[in-house]
Amino acid sequence: MASEKPIRVTLLGCGTVGSGVLELLGRNGGYLAKRVGAPLEIAHVVVRDKARARSVKVDPALLSTDAVACLDDPTVDVVVEAMGGEEPAGAWLARALAGGKSVVTANKALLAARAPALIAAAKKGGGDLAFEASVGGAVPIIRTLRDHLVSDWVRSLRGIVNGTCNYILTRMRDEGAAFADVLKAAQELGYAEAEPSLDVDGLDAAHKLCVLALLAFGAEIYPDEVPTEGIRAIEPIDLRFAARFGYAIKHLAVGRETKNGDLDLRVHPALVPARAPLASVDGVLNAIALEADGAGAQVLVGRGAGSLPTAVSVVADLVDVARARRAGVPGLLTQGLEVARRPLALPGSQEAIWYLRMRVVDRPGVLAQIAGALGRHDVSIEQLVQEGGAGRRAGDRLDGATVGDDTRVIVFLTHVALERDVRAALSEIDAASYVQGRSLALRVEG
Amino acid sequence: MASEKPIRVTLLGCGTVGSGVLELLGRNGGYLAKRVGAPLEIAHVVVRDKARARSVKVDPALLSTDAVACLDDPTVDVVVEAMGGEEPAGAWLARALAGGKSVVTANKALLAARAPALIAAAKKGGGDLAFEASVGGAVPIIRTLRDHLVSDWVRSLRGIVNGTCNYILTRMRDEGAAFADVLKAAQELGYAEAEPSLDVDGLDAAHKLCVLALLAFGAEIYPDEVPTEGIRAIEPIDLRFAARFGYAIKHLAVGRETKNGDLDLRVHPALVPARAPLASVDGVLNAIALEADGAGAQVLVGRGAGSLPTAVSVVADLVDVARARRAGVPGLLTQGLEVARRPLALPGSQEAIWYLRMRVVDRPGVLAQIAGALGRHDVSIEQLVQEGGAGRRAGDRLDGATVGDDTRVIVFLTHVALERDVRAALSEIDAASYVQGRSLALRVEG
Repeated sequence: MASEKPIRVTLLGCGTVGSGVLELLGRNGGYLAKRVGAPLEIAHVVVRDKARARSVKVDPALLSTDAVACLDDPTVDVVVEAMGGEEPAGAWLARALAGGKSVVTANKALLAARAPALIAAAKKGGGDLAFEASVGGAVPIIRTLRDHLVSDWVRSLRGIVNGTCNYILTRMRDEGAAFADVLKAAQELGYAEAEPSLDVDGLDAAHKLCVLALLAFGAEIYPDEVPTEGIRAIEPIDLRFAARFGYAIKHLAVGRETKNGDLDLRVHPALVPARAPLASVDGVLNAIALEADGAGAQVLVGRGAGSLPTAVSVVADLVDVARARRAGVPGLLTQGLEVARRPLALPGSQEAIWYLRMRVVDRPGVLAQIAGALGRHDVSIEQLVQEGGAGRRAGDRLDGATVGDDTRVIVFLTHVALERDVRAALSEIDAASYVQGRSLALRVEG
Repeated sequence: MASEKPIRVTLLGCGTVGSGVLELLGRNGGYLAKRVGAPLEIAHVVVRDKARARSVKVDPALLSTDAVACLDDPTVDVVVEAMGGEEPAGAWLARALAGGKSVVTANKALLAARAPALIAAAKKGGGDLAFEASVGGAVPIIRTLRDHLVSDWVRSLRGIVNGTCNYILTRMRDEGAAFADVLKAAQELGYAEAEPSLDVDGLDAAHKLCVLALLAFGAEIYPDEVPTEGIRAIEPIDLRFAARFGYAIKHLAVGRETKNGDLDLRVHPALVPARAPLASVDGVLNAIALEADGAGAQVLVGRGAGSLPTAVSVVADLVDVARARRAGVPGLLTQGLEVARRPLALPGSQEAIWYLRMRVVDRPGVLAQIAGALGRHDVSIEQLVQEGGAGRRAGDRLDGATVGDDTRVIVFLTHVALERDVRAALSEIDAASYVQGRSLALRVEG
């Protein structure tokens, strides 16, 4: 093995994920060389600042700030990208692929924006493009969709793909704490970014849904086409009411084929039956549940982020593409993968059971007016719970707003209803003087 | 693509799995050809009886009873085995591998007995050996262990890998019905074999554990080395008591490294915390939960059996090995896989929290005697529940035995205790005149 010509790797970025990759290559280099058929050798580690302290020991001679030279190095076979962000990563990977290198990336934002172009560039350049680490951290969902279900058709998928949202919702449920307070604690623990909106407003999950849809549905889809809601509107009371009805609240990325074959793609918090596998996926875990024609139901659960969990996925890809290069047959991974535009379901056109929560002034006739508005829009009520004191003890702080004692929280579970009907009914209800703030509408999923 | 030389396949067996494979190849042939780089072409379907009616349409010209001719056909690239049983499958696959073919098999009994020899034969012959469908049906556990966790070390795994056991335990829990009655119903529905012992006595799960241990721990291990218990001793009362303590009872295949690096491998029913992911895996679903150094915790859930779920796994392997042959590089899948004998934990040497259930005659001093016996063997009690009437309504049928009203069921949860101490205490207790039948001891797992 020692005499085998090594497979040389340029690593872009040496932060959380990049240092995890170096760590795993250091620990398991001997075994990985056997599986690849040749040693994996780090040729360059491209960083912004060579002097910065790192959690992993890196030979200073490998560090470089000259990305272009490291990408163009003709002795390099594979480029591993662990930088994140659309640029300069996008330009650099395009350059690497055009130069015939194979590329491994964990960059969901870049893939969501340009995966079809990157796949085409890989095919043209003759290299491989692999991206297991872009969705679900250590969860082997990309490999499962791309290779395991190669003879199958995925009809729906539901993913808990943002660990920050899941961590916050789990703590809100367990502690009865408000979103803002838990977010702050999560930021202090490093589970949420100082600028949290990419996570808590759902865009990160939308990025991942675009990557999943690529492989699950062969669909070319971009984040601005995905209706996206975050978790800021969820209150502890919602988690409590959901539990009372037999549900958990999870932030989901959902993709499914409608009856007429359109794709219904969306990101939002939703109620999940307490006994469904996704309901017990707590904290920073991620999970993807899917339904396929042949395989039936599948669920994959694992760590959604972190240095080593993500690096495990990166190195799995690295071994795949390195083995193919060593064997002289790069390009096999994406061979035959087809991506095309597919018709999307019209926003609001799909049916669901809905959880509706509103905060109203407690006076005679209010419930009748709400029920009337729902009925006029063909939304029929399956269950109703009303709780005094806005569902809190008097004086409780509720997302910053202390509400008077004359308010009540009313929660409905509807029968199956069209989204646009539910939205129209809530617009009407929220415009009424007896309603405080904005009502919340969450789908029941599964 | 039409001009590409096809990859030719001999299919051994056309029962449940084999006909599923033909079904999927028929449905998705065009797409699979693109992913392989060449069409997949069935060369022969080897069956025992050409005249038998089949659920899938097979060109009669492909059917053959001459296995050797079909295995030796020099135009054949890949042999897919969907027969089951050690022989003649074992001899046939050895012949195919020796002839340089790649082999895909779903045969856990054969792999459990001879996987190391088959892997060696594949390496010698230059073909691939793939066996995703041998464990977990549609669950992508083999691919995950072999490829996804290539840079990681699995420290423990727990699998619900026998759908028959899981189906029976689920119905016993939901209906409060006795094992024998549910088994009979399962046989009528086709979820259990007429001769059920391979499943309900745990041997099938032990086979699968041997296959899992191969990839998870690099361990050469055989079924007679795995302490194996089935589910015949479980009564509805156990499922009810377990739920009362906050647990489900699942039939598990367990593999773990002990503190000193020995392998602790076993198959038995166990208590699983109600909120753990495995607890919600019901009916005919399978699941494997594992703990790895880098990736952390992972859980994979899916259909454990059935024609198409199993065939999805077979065809995924077929595409892998066919693509490698088309590219002229067979043998990549098992490249570098190492399997070796590893020290096994001594039976009885491991600690656990235990659920103990005994049926005793209700007379003064009995509880003191039981507690005394447990204490003498260093088994200390964490919780105790005693229920009158043997935990049933008077006159209830309990696995065929009607017990008098002077019996009581006593259930303990212990503190952490050594298995050999628990067994010794129960031997002593079961020998006493106040105990009826054999006491049950189940570990708490996870």
